[in-house]
Amino acid sequence: MSELFHEIENCVTAPQGFRAGITACGIKSDGAIPDLAILASDVPCVAAGTFTTSRTRAAPVLVCQERLKNGKAQAVIVNSGNANCATGEIGLLNAYRMTEYTATLLDLENELVLCSSTGIIGRQLPIEKIETGVKQIKLRNDQGNAFSEAILTTDTRPKRMALEFQIEGKTVRLGGVTKGAGMIYPNMATMLCYLTTDAAIEHEWMQTEVRAAVEDTFNMIAMDGDMSTNDTCILFANGLAGNTPIHAQHPEADTFRKALRYIMEYLAREMARDGEGATKLMTVHVQGARNKDDAVLAARSITLSPLWQCALAGGDPNWGRIVAALGASGCELNQNTFDIAIGDVLVTTQGMAAQYDQQAARAAMAGKDVTISIDLHLGEGRTTAWGCDLTHGYIDENTLYSR
Amino acid sequence: MSELFHEIENCVTAPQGFRAGITACGIKSDGAIPDLAILASDVPCVAAGTFTTSRTRAAPVLVCQERLKNGKAQAVIVNSGNANCATGEIGLLNAYRMTEYTATLLDLENELVLCSSTGIIGRQLPIEKIETGVKQIKLRNDQGNAFSEAILTTDTRPKRMALEFQIEGKTVRLGGVTKGAGMIYPNMATMLCYLTTDAAIEHEWMQTEVRAAVEDTFNMIAMDGDMSTNDTCILFANGLAGNTPIHAQHPEADTFRKALRYIMEYLAREMARDGEGATKLMTVHVQGARNKDDAVLAARSITLSPLWQCALAGGDPNWGRIVAALGASGCELNQNTFDIAIGDVLVTTQGMAAQYDQQAARAAMAGKDVTISIDLHLGEGRTTAWGCDLTHGYIDENTLYSR
Repeated sequence: MSELFHEIENCVTAPQGFRAGITACGIKSDGAIPDLAILASDVPCVAAGTFTTSRTRAAPVLVCQERLKNGKAQAVIVNSGNANCATGEIGLLNAYRMTEYTATLLDLENELVLCSSTGIIGRQLPIEKIETGVKQIKLRNDQGNAFSEAILTTDTRPKRMALEFQIEGKTVRLGGVTKGAGMIYPNMATMLCYLTTDAAIEHEWMQTEVRAAVEDTFNMIAMDGDMSTNDTCILFANGLAGNTPIHAQHPEADTFRKALRYIMEYLAREMARDGEGATKLMTVHVQGARNKDDAVLAARSITLSPLWQCALAGGDPNWGRIVAALGASGCELNQNTFDIAIGDVLVTTQGMAAQYDQQAARAAMAGKDVTISIDLHLGEGRTTAWGCDLTHGYIDENTLYSR
Repeated sequence: MSELFHEIENCVTAPQGFRAGITACGIKSDGAIPDLAILASDVPCVAAGTFTTSRTRAAPVLVCQERLKNGKAQAVIVNSGNANCATGEIGLLNAYRMTEYTATLLDLENELVLCSSTGIIGRQLPIEKIETGVKQIKLRNDQGNAFSEAILTTDTRPKRMALEFQIEGKTVRLGGVTKGAGMIYPNMATMLCYLTTDAAIEHEWMQTEVRAAVEDTFNMIAMDGDMSTNDTCILFANGLAGNTPIHAQHPEADTFRKALRYIMEYLAREMARDGEGATKLMTVHVQGARNKDDAVLAARSITLSPLWQCALAGGDPNWGRIVAALGASGCELNQNTFDIAIGDVLVTTQGMAAQYDQQAARAAMAGKDVTISIDLHLGEGRTTAWGCDLTHGYIDENTLYSR
């Protein structure tokens, strides 16, 4: 970790003035499992978000996009168990109703409340259950962890973090939670991410930074924003730390940027590690690409290759499958110059088998963290992507999900 | 089947003047399983092919592409068990050697011999075994079926067909075989397809027709030409039927076109049905798209969705996953106009759940052939794609393939 910041507890309720609350209102099943949660600030926030670009965006995404146009928000209500997608005008009305119930509960302006949904597609929300549920929610400033758990669907564990650091000598906190994904594939993941900070931030810079950080983190686990119906990432900044609002020329802008990226990369990596049925995290470093776009194509193509994901599951250093994925990626490639290493073992050099120890290559595939490093030897483009293996567990989770 | 043609035996050796032969030379294992095969015509052929556009094309693909520039060929030698990909200059030299051994055996011009390889990537061919193996091969005109079996890798059964029809009152035959693929995904499949005919055909028209037919058949099982290292489809026409060479204005060009597409669609569908671990074939019809390109995006996105493939495996009519795949496909979409049917059951109308019988929807998912029909209600674009389900069998086949 950077010397600039250190980790603290309570994730999204760690920053001053943020509270959360949850309940089990029966969307998921009989009402025993938390499935409804609210996160709110005591004062209005500057807010910025990025969302799916799917052509079948869920109703709550449409509501968030409309309400974030002015860069202000104060709360978000989230349900799990139902995506409120492919639900037409009724679905849109229900999404607005979720925000109204929340505004009433917290005595906020309705326009400052956002909403998210995750779960099965194509069913109308049980809006009466949500109306009843919202009234049961008590918000407290120690409920960040509870919030991180209530938004989960098939995740096996919550993903959350908070950091504390100094801006202008004032203590600033930044917290984040994410609800992971199915498998690490395009079109399979609904990712929800909420970030909170008590730093004061100018909206334009914040929007730019959130978008750029999403590109390098969440979009590099191949659950890119344009692929799911509900993908949402929102940062709330309430300014209670009392610093001068951060903008591009602020002398400590980079401190905030580093903290934001640290948390988002952590959350992205943990989502990949918690892919459905996953037993291994893979980290793919690409360097020497013609440019960054090419590096992204190459890295993502490998994390997305089911054949390579199966090899990873079996601990089989079958690097020919990496070669096939590279060739199919669309990135510029010279068949005679690229190198591939698995862990520290160089398995491919100049596009062909290197002299390597098969046992060492197997050992590099054996652990829970497997690193693939590729050098295309064409230019300065580089990036990192994360993914996981493909196992029976994935099939089992997804074969009968809707029943 | 059309009244224009009828099915006959012997696939690629059904047309006059084509012979094939096989042997087991020990590339695959200890020499008990056929892994080397030659298909040849008694006289030089007009030939046309389409190949992978991967940036890591295998050596034999490079050889074929070079030699087919003049539109002539007479034979092809194929090995299974080793892809001769990521093998550098030695691999290219070995690919040429395969053709030389074949030319010597058959007393042909070396430049008229093509070659293909399929199997594991990144290992040099055991070229001495191939040299010895070629000498053992005896070509006969009843060995088409044996040829179709020797080129297989993880396929569970051969895919082959031959048709007989009339052109200018003369009997013409067209045969085809294909070696299937791993799973029906991009970047996972090596597809090899060889087609033979005794029709006389002009080269330019033949190249156009082969390319167009590949687009609508093999590329619609999502093993599109630009995604594997070794994909190859070649048509040999030796002219022994004695017809006037077919070209675009030939009055019976359409008869040949229909026969070619009939065989290629059959082979493509059977490849999808025989995807690794597959238990069900899915056929996805899209209509009402803005244009054909959009229809292709939409249809392929559904066959490529692992989430939907899992639902298919479980017989679960979870059409929300089709909605997500459509939204992510990149095709133009109106969220309020599209319909989805599973078999005859309309499950989605105007982008939302239709009133349907859940038991009927389950029944439509229960068989070995499942049809999904989508109408986007935007235009005249339409297409059909084929795919299969995703099962434990796929994982099992690919977890330890290289050992």
